[in-house]
Amino acid sequence: MSELRWDPLKNNWTIMAMGQGRRPQDFWQQHDLPATGFCPFCPGYESKTPSEIYAHRPGGSARNQPGWQVRVIPNKVPALGIEGELDNRAEGLYDRMNGIGAHELIIETPDHQTQLADLSIEQITEVLKAYRVRMLDLRNDSRFRYIFIFKNCRIGTASNIQHSHSQLIAVPLIPPLVATELDCCRDHYQRKERCLVCDLIRQERQAKERIVKDDGNFLVYAPYASRFPFELMITPVAHQHDFATQTDQQLQSLAETLRDALQRIRKVLRDPPYSLILHSAPPMHSRWGRPDYWAMLPANYHWHIELAPKLTRMTGFEWGSGFHINPTAPEEAADFLRRADLIQT
Amino acid sequence: MSELRWDPLKNNWTIMAMGQGRRPQDFWQQHDLPATGFCPFCPGYESKTPSEIYAHRPGGSARNQPGWQVRVIPNKVPALGIEGELDNRAEGLYDRMNGIGAHELIIETPDHQTQLADLSIEQITEVLKAYRVRMLDLRNDSRFRYIFIFKNCRIGTASNIQHSHSQLIAVPLIPPLVATELDCCRDHYQRKERCLVCDLIRQERQAKERIVKDDGNFLVYAPYASRFPFELMITPVAHQHDFATQTDQQLQSLAETLRDALQRIRKVLRDPPYSLILHSAPPMHSRWGRPDYWAMLPANYHWHIELAPKLTRMTGFEWGSGFHINPTAPEEAADFLRRADLIQT
Repeated sequence: MSELRWDPLKNNWTIMAMGQGRRPQDFWQQHDLPATGFCPFCPGYESKTPSEIYAHRPGGSARNQPGWQVRVIPNKVPALGIEGELDNRAEGLYDRMNGIGAHELIIETPDHQTQLADLSIEQITEVLKAYRVRMLDLRNDSRFRYIFIFKNCRIGTASNIQHSHSQLIAVPLIPPLVATELDCCRDHYQRKERCLVCDLIRQERQAKERIVKDDGNFLVYAPYASRFPFELMITPVAHQHDFATQTDQQLQSLAETLRDALQRIRKVLRDPPYSLILHSAPPMHSRWGRPDYWAMLPANYHWHIELAPKLTRMTGFEWGSGFHINPTAPEEAADFLRRADLIQT
Repeated sequence: MSELRWDPLKNNWTIMAMGQGRRPQDFWQQHDLPATGFCPFCPGYESKTPSEIYAHRPGGSARNQPGWQVRVIPNKVPALGIEGELDNRAEGLYDRMNGIGAHELIIETPDHQTQLADLSIEQITEVLKAYRVRMLDLRNDSRFRYIFIFKNCRIGTASNIQHSHSQLIAVPLIPPLVATELDCCRDHYQRKERCLVCDLIRQERQAKERIVKDDGNFLVYAPYASRFPFELMITPVAHQHDFATQTDQQLQSLAETLRDALQRIRKVLRDPPYSLILHSAPPMHSRWGRPDYWAMLPANYHWHIELAPKLTRMTGFEWGSGFHINPTAPEEAADFLRRADLIQT
């Protein structure tokens, strides 16, 4: 059983993934795990995974059989477990909560070799639709305060499966970095009656130097205070607080933007590992007990995707101070990415 | 020239280390940098480093010559530069500050092969005295709001020098994670008129299950909400807010505790890379313009060292949510470390 634990000195919550129960020897061996010989995410091995939650099957094939284009399954070793009731209590000065949540994997393609950047616009659109379907469905479970979607490409321990996939973790708390964004957006709106991200978009379009791509629907830019070299922000130009309300057409436009950004990063940085995260407004029932606090959220929050190639490692300075050190100015990063000679696919 | 930049959406500051100016090709090659053939931190190569700031020379040898046991030098490629005045201004919605600071390296031993865990108690005490000397000296510069001391052992890019050393970065802002601790300690004190860390120590000593070592002077324990597997907190048992006021005798006692903790980690986890950070109260002049806010800081803050082997990698989930996932319960980590059959040195 996993647990969430709160530290009164750091004011931070940690997910104790007890199910993984990693002991010292598990860390010794992390660089030479034996290859399993087959990939459970490939078609034909559907029976090796937990039963699917959702799939896009254009030919109408049967559940848990080949024929899918996108497939969503529960993670076999979830960080948080789906069964049980929330139980939040103090342990002396500490707090604990049992680790209720959902941990799903979105398999983006039946093809083991193909990466997200290589997929067709139609296929990437189907991946984004799977995000939307799962986000809408999990909102019906009032135990989950936030549904967090992300992707690691070639990041993590050797045991991670390389077959292209995204992940979804539903958590019983608003994640701290999302909470900070919600607070910043609320404060800005209270002072100015404008959305902070809309204001940032306006300033970036005027400054131009950090913009990588602007097709009128989605803006891709290197944030002014980028924490990581070549970090990118992808945001709808028009004000929208909730990813899950995107139309099919908007998702197709996002698919075009996302593929373009991924291909630029691959070209300029020679196919680096990367992470991608989606920040959207929390579901309505998360706005528990604080109607005044959340009332203007649809007006003041603006969903976005953050994309960062993994080029540097966190060191003691970063995790001990909370500062990031970025060795590449975002203006330079944007310039390289803007001038990338795009790979034709 | 480096810069500090603030993001209104994240409420976070990033250090833009422009001096490093890393372009895409610098990241391509990070895994196969040529060996330089000599180590500038070894005795006999003192002229290859910037001129020393401090050294412990028991035989009384000349400055920038061999004969030292501990040597402190400015970093040749500093994250922040020492020259100039603070200049803090808005850029539209953003903030920027020029990157004034100090970045020093504390070479812990003349011997290229020896790690901190292998040094004698006397030698580790001299390293800690160097921390104290530099912290006290840099407090005289009112541009620096905080003096952050840390150590990365075998962490970072290939260009990092493996010769055992610590680092010091003086910054013109209180680091965000230190600010959070200061806030938590102040709030706890306002409610209870007790130091939060003293209360935590009392609770940990009662629970016992997370304690690795307790010699009456320093307590070593795995924090309840450990962010990383086998993370440790090292704290003086008696209330002390400021590392720089430690006596020689206290530093020697800390050296014993630190060496013991490092040796346990090495034994149990087979010599993993690790980071170590020191959190102490900010200098008096940092408490700018807020006497009410800082007045009780000596009573409510408690300095400590945090030590974490690097066994897992940050993924998109961690950097996008602010949550950490820890696969090893601190009670289990403490049990393994407590039972470590210590290497005799």
